[in-house]
Amino acid sequence: MTYLKNILNKVKNNEMSIEEASLLLRNNSYEDMGFAKLDHHRKIRTGFPEVVFCQGKTAQQVSNIVHKLAEHNSVVLATRATREQYNAVLQQTPNAVYHEAARVIEAGTSEIEDESRYILVVSAGTADIPVAEEAAVTARAMGSRVERLYDVGVAGIHRLLDNKDIIDKANVIIAVAGMEGALISVIGGLVDKPVVAVPTSIGYGASFQGLAALLSMLNTCAEGVAVVNIDNGFGAGYFAHMINK
Amino acid sequence: MTYLKNILNKVKNNEMSIEEASLLLRNNSYEDMGFAKLDHHRKIRTGFPEVVFCQGKTAQQVSNIVHKLAEHNSVVLATRATREQYNAVLQQTPNAVYHEAARVIEAGTSEIEDESRYILVVSAGTADIPVAEEAAVTARAMGSRVERLYDVGVAGIHRLLDNKDIIDKANVIIAVAGMEGALISVIGGLVDKPVVAVPTSIGYGASFQGLAALLSMLNTCAEGVAVVNIDNGFGAGYFAHMINK
Amino acid sequence: MTYLKNILNKVKNNEMSIEEASLLLRNNSYEDMGFAKLDHHRKIRTGFPEVVFCQGKTAQQVSNIVHKLAEHNSVVLATRATREQYNAVLQQTPNAVYHEAARVIEAGTSEIEDESRYILVVSAGTADIPVAEEAAVTARAMGSRVERLYDVGVAGIHRLLDNKDIIDKANVIIAVAGMEGALISVIGGLVDKPVVAVPTSIGYGASFQGLAALLSMLNTCAEGVAVVNIDNGFGAGYFAHMINK
Amino acid sequence: MTYLKNILNKVKNNEMSIEEASLLLRNNSYEDMGFAKLDHHRKIRTGFPEVVFCQGKTAQQVSNIVHKLAEHNSVVLATRATREQYNAVLQQTPNAVYHEAARVIEAGTSEIEDESRYILVVSAGTADIPVAEEAAVTARAMGSRVERLYDVGVAGIHRLLDNKDIIDKANVIIAVAGMEGALISVIGGLVDKPVVAVPTSIGYGASFQGLAALLSMLNTCAEGVAVVNIDNGFGAGYFAHMINK
Amino acid sequence: MTYLKNILNKVKNNEMSIEEASLLLRNNSYEDMGFAKLDHHRKIRTGFPEVVFCQGKTAQQVSNIVHKLAEHNSVVLATRATREQYNAVLQQTPNAVYHEAARVIEAGTSEIEDESRYILVVSAGTADIPVAEEAAVTARAMGSRVERLYDVGVAGIHRLLDNKDIIDKANVIIAVAGMEGALISVIGGLVDKPVVAVPTSIGYGASFQGLAALLSMLNTCAEGVAVVNIDNGFGAGYFAHMINK
Amino acid sequence: MTYLKNILNKVKNNEMSIEEASLLLRNNSYEDMGFAKLDHHRKIRTGFPEVVFCQGKTAQQVSNIVHKLAEHNSVVLATRATREQYNAVLQQTPNAVYHEAARVIEAGTSEIEDESRYILVVSAGTADIPVAEEAAVTARAMGSRVERLYDVGVAGIHRLLDNKDIIDKANVIIAVAGMEGALISVIGGLVDKPVVAVPTSIGYGASFQGLAALLSMLNTCAEGVAVVNIDNGFGAGYFAHMINK
Amino acid sequence: MTYLKNILNKVKNNEMSIEEASLLLRNNSYEDMGFAKLDHHRKIRTGFPEVVFCQGKTAQQVSNIVHKLAEHNSVVLATRATREQYNAVLQQTPNAVYHEAARVIEAGTSEIEDESRYILVVSAGTADIPVAEEAAVTARAMGSRVERLYDVGVAGIHRLLDNKDIIDKANVIIAVAGMEGALISVIGGLVDKPVVAVPTSIGYGASFQGLAALLSMLNTCAEGVAVVNIDNGFGAGYFAHMINK
Amino acid sequence: MTYLKNILNKVKNNEMSIEEASLLLRNNSYEDMGFAKLDHHRKIRTGFPEVVFCQGKTAQQVSNIVHKLAEHNSVVLATRATREQYNAVLQQTPNAVYHEAARVIEAGTSEIEDESRYILVVSAGTADIPVAEEAAVTARAMGSRVERLYDVGVAGIHRLLDNKDIIDKANVIIAVAGMEGALISVIGGLVDKPVVAVPTSIGYGASFQGLAALLSMLNTCAEGVAVVNIDNGFGAGYFAHMINK
Repeated sequence: MTYLKNILNKVKNNEMSIEEASLLLRNNSYEDMGFAKLDHHRKIRTGFPEVVFCQGKTAQQVSNIVHKLAEHNSVVLATRATREQYNAVLQQTPNAVYHEAARVIEAGTSEIEDESRYILVVSAGTADIPVAEEAAVTARAMGSRVERLYDVGVAGIHRLLDNKDIIDKANVIIAVAGMEGALISVIGGLVDKPVVAVPTSIGYGASFQGLAALLSMLNTCAEGVAVVNIDNGFGAGYFAHMINK
Repeated sequence: MTYLKNILNKVKNNEMSIEEASLLLRNNSYEDMGFAKLDHHRKIRTGFPEVVFCQGKTAQQVSNIVHKLAEHNSVVLATRATREQYNAVLQQTPNAVYHEAARVIEAGTSEIEDESRYILVVSAGTADIPVAEEAAVTARAMGSRVERLYDVGVAGIHRLLDNKDIIDKANVIIAVAGMEGALISVIGGLVDKPVVAVPTSIGYGASFQGLAALLSMLNTCAEGVAVVNIDNGFGAGYFAHMINK
Repeated sequence: MTYLKNILNKVKNNEMSIEEASLLLRNNSYEDMGFAKLDHHRKIRTGFPEVVFCQGKTAQQVSNIVHKLAEHNSVVLATRATREQYNAVLQQTPNAVYHEAARVIEAGTSEIEDESRYILVVSAGTADIPVAEEAAVTARAMGSRVERLYDVGVAGIHRLLDNKDIIDKANVIIAVAGMEGALISVIGGLVDKPVVAVPTSIGYGASFQGLAALLSMLNTCAEGVAVVNIDNGFGAGYFAHMINK
Repeated sequence: MTYLKNILNKVKNNEMSIEEASLLLRNNSYEDMGFAKLDHHRKIRTGFPEVVFCQGKTAQQVSNIVHKLAEHNSVVLATRATREQYNAVLQQTPNAVYHEAARVIEAGTSEIEDESRYILVVSAGTADIPVAEEAAVTARAMGSRVERLYDVGVAGIHRLLDNKDIIDKANVIIAVAGMEGALISVIGGLVDKPVVAVPTSIGYGASFQGLAALLSMLNTCAEGVAVVNIDNGFGAGYFAHMINK
Repeated sequence: MTYLKNILNKVKNNEMSIEEASLLLRNNSYEDMGFAKLDHHRKIRTGFPEVVFCQGKTAQQVSNIVHKLAEHNSVVLATRATREQYNAVLQQTPNAVYHEAARVIEAGTSEIEDESRYILVVSAGTADIPVAEEAAVTARAMGSRVERLYDVGVAGIHRLLDNKDIIDKANVIIAVAGMEGALISVIGGLVDKPVVAVPTSIGYGASFQGLAALLSMLNTCAEGVAVVNIDNGFGAGYFAHMINK
Repeated sequence: MTYLKNILNKVKNNEMSIEEASLLLRNNSYEDMGFAKLDHHRKIRTGFPEVVFCQGKTAQQVSNIVHKLAEHNSVVLATRATREQYNAVLQQTPNAVYHEAARVIEAGTSEIEDESRYILVVSAGTADIPVAEEAAVTARAMGSRVERLYDVGVAGIHRLLDNKDIIDKANVIIAVAGMEGALISVIGGLVDKPVVAVPTSIGYGASFQGLAALLSMLNTCAEGVAVVNIDNGFGAGYFAHMINK
Repeated sequence: MTYLKNILNKVKNNEMSIEEASLLLRNNSYEDMGFAKLDHHRKIRTGFPEVVFCQGKTAQQVSNIVHKLAEHNSVVLATRATREQYNAVLQQTPNAVYHEAARVIEAGTSEIEDESRYILVVSAGTADIPVAEEAAVTARAMGSRVERLYDVGVAGIHRLLDNKDIIDKANVIIAVAGMEGALISVIGGLVDKPVVAVPTSIGYGASFQGLAALLSMLNTCAEGVAVVNIDNGFGAGYFAHMINK
Repeated sequence: MTYLKNILNKVKNNEMSIEEASLLLRNNSYEDMGFAKLDHHRKIRTGFPEVVFCQGKTAQQVSNIVHKLAEHNSVVLATRATREQYNAVLQQTPNAVYHEAARVIEAGTSEIEDESRYILVVSAGTADIPVAEEAAVTARAMGSRVERLYDVGVAGIHRLLDNKDIIDKANVIIAVAGMEGALISVIGGLVDKPVVAVPTSIGYGASFQGLAALLSMLNTCAEGVAVVNIDNGFGAGYFAHMINK
């Protein structure tokens, strides 16, 4: 309550304008584009600007939103983007680049905040790479150093154990796996770092579009593991950066 | 068709009695106990006598069935048995023994057919031991040599790798695990032996009474793995013995 | 531990080079193709080289991987392959053949190890044949003799009973069925051989893409049955060969 | 519409009283017991009086309802009844009998309408008998002749085939099974009679309280099969009698 | 057992040839088309020849099977048939007709066995008509008189009540409904005839492809209702004819 | 009963013709179009004419039904309509308009019954707008004043709180959300107005086509919330108008 | 924004004290009881004080919370209360009454706001009455007139149609049903009033604790229906009162 | 590989004993208690000693394991412990304390590593407190400072917003909620800290033992959120400490 009373006191004493107070009390502000309300203060509030989820949007809509956001932010991300949407973005935002494997558009860049701390993105199979890349590109765009270790599923566990060095030195690990997701439990048991698990929809039959991997990861016998939604590479990258920064 | 015609020819030529032929054509025979039809020829047909599933039967019913079966067979098994049911069995079948951890009654014994070939029963956690024991006791009762390796879940993978010797020399492996069941994929990737996977209902929350482990095992990225029902230690022991014999 | 100490002793006593020891301790080795890590020692470890799962890979990727694996192995399998992928494989691996019904590419051949022991692949309906063929081609490529008995679903149980001879003489049975999967229970009750059950996604309505058949098989009242993933003909063939060899 | 106009014409021409017409137009009538509305015209409408489902009712409530219904009907059924509820019923309805295995109270009797046509109730295992008995008692109470064939599950298919005679002569078959429910498909393929399938909640692990059997039966490859709810012996008996009468 | 011994006695006494006996003991016979085993004795066993399920078969395969079956049977059905499959069938079986709404091919005809007894097919909405027609065409092809009452869902219950006459006079009712399937309970409460319920996959959102309707029908509070698989019009028509004949 | 007797008395006393009475007793009437029974009295019974669900209907069928309904009603709605279906409707019903975002055809108009009471339609994200628009157009077509507040999901809760004024003054709120549907609980806790919640199928991974949002809304900790089917904007608009009128 | 600025302006101009503004800006206030934060301003915000959900609370905790709430509110509700909890409440709040069938404690009373408008609570079966009573008691306690119509399930639809008068005159209808929940669709098709549907967990087998009824109600073909959680009589009563007031 | 070769070189050069090397290569060691293998090196590997999961263990087993672990570690945790298990533990480990609300036994203590960084545990309702306490006690035992904010569910969102200060200053947030779990999305949108979400099994009806909350949290529209298993307070506390340290 002190927070509130403090502001109100300042207004009363003319130490703060009504406009300023109004802004603070609303906490944030946004821009109404008709079909969307852009949340320009999100960066202040949560540390990173609003990210554009491209699926279901027209190429022109994506381009417009990216353009607007790029006016206020040094780096803008758009996920689940097609090349067609990227081409439209290029018209208004020429410095945008397209991470094909990750299906992510990135406009602007951010410096790596601390080279000594890195996020390691591990994938079980080659088919999990698009989701792993979405995680890696997201975390890098937010300012984290990112290393990759792909195709180290537990059916050939030596591939994983041989790379224990890069695993041990990581600050956070993002582990991406489909099928039965056993990679997460093995990694979780090896390290004393937080492991962010990403189930993918890779698999067939009773994998039920990633449900098997999701349940497997939620029930891991290893400690120090938390899980994001199926195929949610972006969410994992974002979460890992929050830990890493 | 030759099989059929063969028998019929013998009947026609008086080389086989009608009774014999009738028996053969019916393939098997059974004994009607009113509430149950005992399948005495099952041993001939499938290699092992009918096994008594005790759950939902009264102690007296279990005792009666075990007694009847013991008349025709050198070894009889009763699974999911309580101590109370065992006590009733003892009245009619004094040589019956009770494997407490496995909840199995065994009446009579069978020799180990081949000491050089063994089934290895592996369990992930201590809570999986009752199911693992049901598998072990079943396979032993059928005539297989059985070895055990318990509490080697993947969260401490060195416990498993340290015992690679006993794993490598096994002829068949039964792997029992609850929670996320990742043990199966790691073992499956290490060996060139068939792995019979048994999901257990151990776990909580989103394990959904073993569903997570079951789906995990069905979706294993390792080859050479097949799965039995949740908590079905008996089925795994039976299946493994069929391979081993 | 003796295994470990043994190697270390040899190194100390110069009976083994560091390179050799390193290789043994890593157990296996692999080849990094950038997007994939080929597991060349898998044959030593699990008895068969890595198998290529073609779904989601480009024709060129499949061709490259098959080519690499064919350099180190006498026989290579690629499953879920399209004809287009096969055509690409042919460019680099001219001896590759395409099993159309099974959707499997096979490069190289293996001898049948023992003609007197065969795996019988049984299918319930004609629609289950692709999965059954995937199982049959896999087991044959690994070196097992394979026999087939198709379209013998239980709605006309005489079709099954008439072929009891070929069933009785099999060493292992792979039973493939969609819909309600009742075939597995009937076969399981007839024989004293391990039955590897493969649920297929054949069916409609409440079959839920093979879930009904899967649950049915897991709950079979017959003994001596284990189950692989829905439509996983390859897994069944692999598992059956492990038993048969 | 002619039905309506017909009645209205009669009213206009004084051939029918307003009371009579009112009754006909309402179709049926019922008795309000405060907590329940007894549907006395149900027998006229659907061929059998309202049946009391005892679960969740007090012994006194069951007794009161049975008593009321017995005033208007020659036979009354109460299902899922405990012995305690039966004892209460006996106070007001001394001729009531208790079918223990079926958990059914029957007050009054009905003649068998046609001895030459019978319903056959088949059960897969001994644990399915309570549900089978509920079906048998219900159909008999409604006036059908009922025969029983229990413990003939498909794991020992000769037990079923040996009794083909009693199966072939039945007019309708009720087939009761838990676990994987394969019995239904085998019977459905053997006969040209309607088969009413009853999944039971018998089983464990992935039977999910009868779901596996239910899905199995709905997906049967046999024709001439329809399914009732899990454990719904009463519904099957009622439905079979409707066919048989 | 008498059945078996009887045949064997006749063989012994030369009253029956081995060939005849062999045929009887096999019960039925079939024709092997390579990819399918046609079950020519099914008509003797179950009262109707094998029905062709066209989904997943090539036009040529459907045509070949229909042609073979038409040689031995006066009427042949092929369900889930496309017009393209029908065109292929016409080449070999010129008298085949195509029921477009029902997606059924019918070759040959059968007389109505008894004009006084009819099956009434009721549908809740217009979108349920294809399934309803599959049921109607099937039952008619098997020899039943069929009447139809479509688009009488319970949201306008007067549409149903106005047609009570045609409902009351039916011998069996097939009730087809998607969405919540409430039609079944209302009809079940109105009549003393068996009601065969067919859930359809019509609906959206939480209908989950017919699951809602299926569960609703299995849980109906009305008596005298049994259920077939989702969208299984054929199964309902077949089952209803078995009752009606 | 008085209602019935009243009509019958009038018929007897010639105060009402048989035709009138017949109509009243049937309650409603409908028009049989062969493939559909149009329910013309629905407006009298439920307050609004039958609404056409276009999915699965041909453009011509939609046009015919809209045309027929427009003869008897001042406003007609057709939902889930494509532009192609709209073009067909225009041929027979020139005054029809197409609400593109809502995918709704509206023929005729209705006045706003009371400008002082409005329904507020709130959506969480831009992807939820089609469902929100279906709700808004429906409620407006029925005669309610409608206001909109879109893209106010809880991840930026100030967007919602800033608009508390328009929320507080609403008479009913329709809240549309996919993903986790948390918007509903926040709104429900802020107001003393009924909140009609509409889960949408927007989301990915473990959203399972709207199941996550549906369960979330059913379990809301807020009071004063009821839920309609996934994506059922029409149902929400209809229900909200019933409250608002 | 005007709302915010308005308050701030008043503070600046000394037209409002900081305390008042602070209160308004926080909107509400609460009382911290250590283990719970009582929300005393909820009545102002949502029209009714916080309701105590008794399940999982000790009798003493319930008593303390009811006592605290009764100090600030004229009527307090506690749902899912046992008689033991009621006895504890009586110690501190002597005017509390216990609605046994509804399992609700009510302390204090509220006047009926408008006798001419009533909520009708309809239940399908006698087993649904506890949930129906929870709804009825809640709505009455909030100030609505409530009427009841119980045991009118659609298996005897005349029981429902005979009471059309009381249905037609209701302002809102709460319809409570388990099993298949068909009652909701029939009522929804009869009236032009909002219908609040409450699925109950009554049923067995494939009712899956109310899931069947829930899905059925969400998929109703009737318009003007919205659904609350399984067994959530309180939520339905609360929601209906919000409409009715 | 350098890691391996390095050790081997040292062995060869007598710079490291075989025993040391063996230990390092095995990475860890454990103690075999017969029924369990205690993992004493886990602290080195993952930063915290093995934690005892008490459910399903006898009081004596718990006591023995705690005692063994306490010999090697300064602090030992046992979760899901009953008071009876605690009493047994006290016999061998007198310094053990019992956190009743959390159901956790703690033997020994650990210092708070950094007072300036704290984990905030937030719970939605009072019923979620046991899970929240398990998280809080775990994180504290591992060495993190922990603050609590309970009963701030979104139905009264001011309770949450009023405490924004303590939320903003936290380093990591653990958010615990049952029912619909909306709390997570609101918090996730307010802060730039990682939020660890814990669904609880609190709720009824369609909450399905926490499934609704779990799905809701996985689908959150907020960024920076990851999820642990239902009711897994321990896992959340462990994971949060890994971030915090």
